[in-house]
Amino acid sequence: MGKLKNFEKPIGFRDLLPEMANQKREIENRLQTLFSRWGYQEMITPTLEYDQIVGKASAISDSKMFRLLDRQGNALVLRPDMTAPIARVVSSVLRNETLPIRISYHANVFRAQENEAGRFSEFYQSGIELIGERTPDADAEVLTLAIQSLRQVGIDSFRIIVGHVEYLNGILDEWIDEEEQKKVLKERLAKRDFVGYQRFVEENIGMELGRKTLLSILDLQGDFSVLAKARKITSSEKAEKALDELIQIYQLLQLYQVEEYVSFDLIFVPHLEYYTGMVFEATGEGLGFPVCSGGRYDSLLSLFNNPQYATGFALHLDRILDLATVNQESKEKVYIIYDLAHQDEALRYAVKLRETKGMVVETIRIDSKEDLQFIRSNNKTVERIYFLQEDIEE
Amino acid sequence: MGKLKNFEKPIGFRDLLPEMANQKREIENRLQTLFSRWGYQEMITPTLEYDQIVGKASAISDSKMFRLLDRQGNALVLRPDMTAPIARVVSSVLRNETLPIRISYHANVFRAQENEAGRFSEFYQSGIELIGERTPDADAEVLTLAIQSLRQVGIDSFRIIVGHVEYLNGILDEWIDEEEQKKVLKERLAKRDFVGYQRFVEENIGMELGRKTLLSILDLQGDFSVLAKARKITSSEKAEKALDELIQIYQLLQLYQVEEYVSFDLIFVPHLEYYTGMVFEATGEGLGFPVCSGGRYDSLLSLFNNPQYATGFALHLDRILDLATVNQESKEKVYIIYDLAHQDEALRYAVKLRETKGMVVETIRIDSKEDLQFIRSNNKTVERIYFLQEDIEE
Repeated sequence: MGKLKNFEKPIGFRDLLPEMANQKREIENRLQTLFSRWGYQEMITPTLEYDQIVGKASAISDSKMFRLLDRQGNALVLRPDMTAPIARVVSSVLRNETLPIRISYHANVFRAQENEAGRFSEFYQSGIELIGERTPDADAEVLTLAIQSLRQVGIDSFRIIVGHVEYLNGILDEWIDEEEQKKVLKERLAKRDFVGYQRFVEENIGMELGRKTLLSILDLQGDFSVLAKARKITSSEKAEKALDELIQIYQLLQLYQVEEYVSFDLIFVPHLEYYTGMVFEATGEGLGFPVCSGGRYDSLLSLFNNPQYATGFALHLDRILDLATVNQESKEKVYIIYDLAHQDEALRYAVKLRETKGMVVETIRIDSKEDLQFIRSNNKTVERIYFLQEDIEE
Repeated sequence: MGKLKNFEKPIGFRDLLPEMANQKREIENRLQTLFSRWGYQEMITPTLEYDQIVGKASAISDSKMFRLLDRQGNALVLRPDMTAPIARVVSSVLRNETLPIRISYHANVFRAQENEAGRFSEFYQSGIELIGERTPDADAEVLTLAIQSLRQVGIDSFRIIVGHVEYLNGILDEWIDEEEQKKVLKERLAKRDFVGYQRFVEENIGMELGRKTLLSILDLQGDFSVLAKARKITSSEKAEKALDELIQIYQLLQLYQVEEYVSFDLIFVPHLEYYTGMVFEATGEGLGFPVCSGGRYDSLLSLFNNPQYATGFALHLDRILDLATVNQESKEKVYIIYDLAHQDEALRYAVKLRETKGMVVETIRIDSKEDLQFIRSNNKTVERIYFLQEDIEE
């Protein structure tokens, strides 16, 4: 075990000091108010889950999970995401509820980090899951709420990249037989290694039209017109169905008046493998990392013997905390500094300021000149009111 | 490993369904609003801490802690309380802040349970810590906030039992030399085993006056007059100082107009060992368990090389959730059920109801008569608005 001087925290863990903690509460409250209006009700699930159940169903890689044994010898896991625990709840406690079910959460999730490189081991997510709706209407609702969420917390410069995993699958199926080759190509796209993708296509795809098609999909990033371009280069039913869905989704985004934030990217391959349809990621302008990600995952609930359509997103609150400009009600604050002789008077005044003026009042009892000097030397910005004997006041 | 059918949760863990989760958020928000007005600022600390640091400093017994190893081989612990983590923060990140420091928290804490007996392994606490104030004024503030907290969440039938660990220590020091004997007596009082206490005193204390005194303290439970009775039977300086503090605290509770909730109990021995002065516990009327506990703990911060006075409390939110009568704004809710032909019209109407009337609106797209029948058979209490073609409507 290494040295533990200075009362450190484990790698990737941190304290949220008051300003951050306060902002986090405010953001979560605002998001939940928004989610509620669309019928999403908050749920809280346990921090620890059975590895056999939630650990196994989670899309997070095994090596990233914190595991431990309970007193009965069962392997437990600190939840690595909220999608699997909510799938568990929907498939057990809520199994007989009317569909669709709309659930929201505001929770911490855990991923073990190898070393301290700015990556968090515990981070905060707010999100929604819409279970039991197969229509593009559900995907459009989820996208609209993602956009409204970011606006709700004061983030306005962002783009949402929308893709569809079945478009790419359709194209790959059209031109490639070997699953291994498809996998390599998807991996390269996931890493945004377009050069590597191009090289692999040129070296491995014999048919000229196939080669040309597989290279031309690299251009399928941009505005709505991309969808028409995408349709021209394929006759895959799967790919066409994906495009039909994206068109319907886009029309609904127009109805919801949020389409201005949306770009399309048909070679967007999300890192989580459970997505089966529309996928998206929101990126703050000028930032390299997503502040929100989501999409349709129609197979996950089968792992809980409860096959259901599902779509949703998670907002990455740690990143949003840095960007959000939530106007916090900044209440007037005052220190009331008193000695024993003025105790009653001072504390009654404190009560009055709190109750009638809604002010933030901290009281500090002083018993000596030294106490006072110490106090005076610090926190100069906050107003002070003194209730002191002359001999202390000087 | 046992059978894991039905997608169980680990022992002592549970899901908070929407009604509970919603109430928890509302309660925490109300409490934080109250805490803020007195200058308490929320902090969030990591779920996992180094066992060597926070585990060691915690007053919770070793066998109750969930432990695991991080990828560097360090022993980590799921925080068993919030007092030790906040002591860590105050002694590191906040070491140079002006005292007093006022911190609040709303957090989950963990205690491993042997078996499923209604005991939680993960539970929720809201609390405050007031660091760096040695005066009874600080203890009175903490007690007042405990009382106001309970009232704030709609709990009005409760008693706060106030004691002081130094009164008992003073009396025991006066009449007993052997530390082991003192320990036995304290343990019996902690368990409220008064018969066992009495027997031990009768069998082991030789001096008649000592025996009489040690038996008479069993009566020191009741209203303010108990403090006068308590003073008569001792000449221990320690015990007298404790009574002086309790008198000053009581006078301040009168100033804050919350004294009606308070009883005294000078043989109250708290379960956590770190308390050094005033201690208290609030119990809901007719309930056997505390909904809030706290007191002064002036030695804990020395474990972090930062000797500081400290006092505070934790509200046991799981119990409060059952008792609280927080009037939640119950918003009008409606289902809008539509088919593809009425998509625009229905969704626009949903937007309008949400935005102009602040209503909760869930939309459900129906593609067949079967879909509709399923929906109709459920959730009959919520109002429905239909936008359907005649052939579906029938």
